Amino acid sequence: MVNIVLFEPGELEKPLSRWDERTNHLLKVLHKKAGDTFDAGLLEGGLGRGRIETIRLDGSIIFSLNIHETPPPRIPLRVAVGFPRPIQLKRILRDFSNLGLLAVDLMGTDLGEKSYRDTKLLDNGGARAALIEGAVQARDTGLPVLSRYPSLDAWLHNRAWEKTARPGALPLLIAADNVRPEGAIAHISPSRRRTAVLAVGSERGWSDRERTLLETEGFLRLSLGKRALRTETACIAAAILIIEKIGELG
Amino acid sequence: MVNIVLFEPGELEKPLSRWDERTNHLLKVLHKKAGDTFDAGLLEGGLGRGRIETIRLDGSIIFSLNIHETPPPRIPLRVAVGFPRPIQLKRILRDFSNLGLLAVDLMGTDLGEKSYRDTKLLDNGGARAALIEGAVQARDTGLPVLSRYPSLDAWLHNRAWEKTARPGALPLLIAADNVRPEGAIAHISPSRRRTAVLAVGSERGWSDRERTLLETEGFLRLSLGKRALRTETACIAAAILIIEKIGELG
Repeated sequence: MVNIVLFEPGELEKPLSRWDERTNHLLKVLHKKAGDTFDAGLLEGGLGRGRIETIRLDGSIIFSLNIHETPPPRIPLRVAVGFPRPIQLKRILRDFSNLGLLAVDLMGTDLGEKSYRDTKLLDNGGARAALIEGAVQARDTGLPVLSRYPSLDAWLHNRAWEKTARPGALPLLIAADNVRPEGAIAHISPSRRRTAVLAVGSERGWSDRERTLLETEGFLRLSLGKRALRTETACIAAAILIIEKIGELG
Repeated sequence: MVNIVLFEPGELEKPLSRWDERTNHLLKVLHKKAGDTFDAGLLEGGLGRGRIETIRLDGSIIFSLNIHETPPPRIPLRVAVGFPRPIQLKRILRDFSNLGLLAVDLMGTDLGEKSYRDTKLLDNGGARAALIEGAVQARDTGLPVLSRYPSLDAWLHNRAWEKTARPGALPLLIAADNVRPEGAIAHISPSRRRTAVLAVGSERGWSDRERTLLETEGFLRLSLGKRALRTETACIAAAILIIEKIGELG
């Protein structure tokens, strides 16, 4: 399965620089020549075929796009994560985008390392690049909507998930908690056509104050099993189990 | 949750060098002093408490161990993976160890990149270091048994899984296949007390020759959903879903 090449809408009128990694991918990895076509997509738009019209003397590419297909539907799961280390953040964003999540919220938490909130990834394009990398690998043009909140309190107060819930269906509200769980994610009953919201704390988990807040808002505190998992592993594991529970994996 | 510090049995009689990363972890990250204790374990042995007896002038540590607890049980899942890129291999080994898998088999596959099989990680200690990293984070002393096979044919012929199956219970045999699946992992019925075997191909999947081989041996070819996932993401996702199906997550 070959990755697709994604373009921002504003890039369509310009040649692709020889230093662009997509140029390298097309010419050096896929060995494409002038006149060859490739799978392509328009970010937040459709899927289709690209065509290399000309390879210019300076190594840049003039290309055209023929967009004729809708991208795969988003998975109706929103995940909020306590700010992880920047290197982990990149991988988590890439993986959540690869899984096709609707939205990713980053938030400060009581036990999270304060300095992680100052990451420049959200402003310098690093976060968006990680989301695009995940989408490319899933042959998708859509990206999860990325937001940040100073605290769990602010996130809960915003109730962003209500704006994306399916009408008439209450979203499944789950907080991952391996320290003081009320049950296990593995034990929740499957329910198709639901949207879901997952909150994952920082590496050190939730404070008791945060547990009370989550409980008040109707979140179930559920464990991912008896073993302590790395933050990145726990994020993928919890997301995939919930995607299965809401019937979006079959 | 603080990681444990793991020791090889042969290290117990010797001081821990100041250059050892565990020394750095104990003194610089955990700020331990002489007389302090820490969570410790003996690789492939028990769990307990370590004690820093002396910090010597050269920065090395004399320590003692008091082992009195059995480690968590292994998860009865064996995973065979087509050799991935070395950087991916390290992460996959760390994650599979973090999840507590029984065994990890690396194998050549028809569509896998041949050069990946020549990885030095299996001989230079890199693979073992990745397995230890995953175990430390799960507060476990056990490691998955790591083996390598030249091809899927050799792996199937060896039938390593029969040696670890529970008596009287046929293992669940699954091959991840998003290209020509017969069904979805999400749809298999839960069955407690079973062991499971998962085969994951290379990035490009299986050849039709390999599909026939897997079918002959009784493997079900199941998809992980409609989206193409990165090899590492697919490995964790498939493993966690199967661990849930065999009732080891609750």
